[in-house]
Amino acid sequence: MPPSASAAPLSFSLAEARALLERTSAILDTWLRGLPDAWLHANEGGETWSPYDVLGHYIHGEKADWIPRLRRMLEHGTAVPFDKFDRFAQVRDSEGKSAADLLDELARRRGESLAALDGFGLDETALDRRGLHPELGEVTVRELLACWVAHDLDHLMQIARVLAHRHAGEVGPWRAYLRIISGSPG
Amino acid sequence: MPPSASAAPLSFSLAEARALLERTSAILDTWLRGLPDAWLHANEGGETWSPYDVLGHYIHGEKADWIPRLRRMLEHGTAVPFDKFDRFAQVRDSEGKSAADLLDELARRRGESLAALDGFGLDETALDRRGLHPELGEVTVRELLACWVAHDLDHLMQIARVLAHRHAGEVGPWRAYLRIISGSPG
Repeated sequence: MPPSASAAPLSFSLAEARALLERTSAILDTWLRGLPDAWLHANEGGETWSPYDVLGHYIHGEKADWIPRLRRMLEHGTAVPFDKFDRFAQVRDSEGKSAADLLDELARRRGESLAALDGFGLDETALDRRGLHPELGEVTVRELLACWVAHDLDHLMQIARVLAHRHAGEVGPWRAYLRIISGSPG
Repeated sequence: MPPSASAAPLSFSLAEARALLERTSAILDTWLRGLPDAWLHANEGGETWSPYDVLGHYIHGEKADWIPRLRRMLEHGTAVPFDKFDRFAQVRDSEGKSAADLLDELARRRGESLAALDGFGLDETALDRRGLHPELGEVTVRELLACWVAHDLDHLMQIARVLAHRHAGEVGPWRAYLRIISGSPG
């Protein structure tokens, strides 16, 4: 069953959010560095993303999304909306780079992002500050940070799903038991 | 969109499968070791599993599922069906153990499983050998190995989803963009 917002029992903790944010690039490194190209460039068909594409998307997030938007909120509140985020920038930015190059760059950029986050010294009042998303309207710093964590996890989930897709036709009758392949919500 | 079996373009490769199998315990270690308990013991409500529970399930798979079933197929073909797999064994087996204990045990057992797999020296003929699943009927060695990989990925996906669930009520209007939280298939 898809989780419902109302069922989430716990409130946001900056320290706990950071504990996941600081792991993401290392998880990706452990998972993808040296993996055969057949896995790195597998996708779910058509214009869907491969793990390699997802790495570029994470990097673009470090450059254009999380810390730049957080800084915009702290400096301008809702007076200046966020710049729009280009979900396809990685096609251009990843050109000519190996997966290892992207993993190195992501680790470096994520480290810089966390140093910037720590430098803001956010307290509970700062977490309540508001900014203006160009499509979604007003959002809080707390929501941005919770979204950063969830976005990291969303694309880890995507990588698992994309990789499993390569075996979708190979698992025989076990297909029924594998939610990642059957697409069953249960 | 859930992937369809017919869209999977590539065929099973033992070497490529092994490349993912050998990473799983290290991915889990990078992700979960030292993570705050609020994350390790988060679940999706009711009897759903936490990341800690999933670790125990992986360990039980090493003990009772993958290599024991593979050995059964190679020794007895379809003459002796697999033993049934207890999906809740980890509740008993994990008792009193920390997440760090489970990560250590999984790394050790996965290493032993891969050594056993290598020892079988499976060729294409061996990949076609058949065994008897107590509920699903005849399966091949190739299907078992493809299922092992997909099962690893299925539970990595589950951990990402369970962790993101903690932020389901915290991401504000970004909820609409986060497939991992909205449950949207698209």
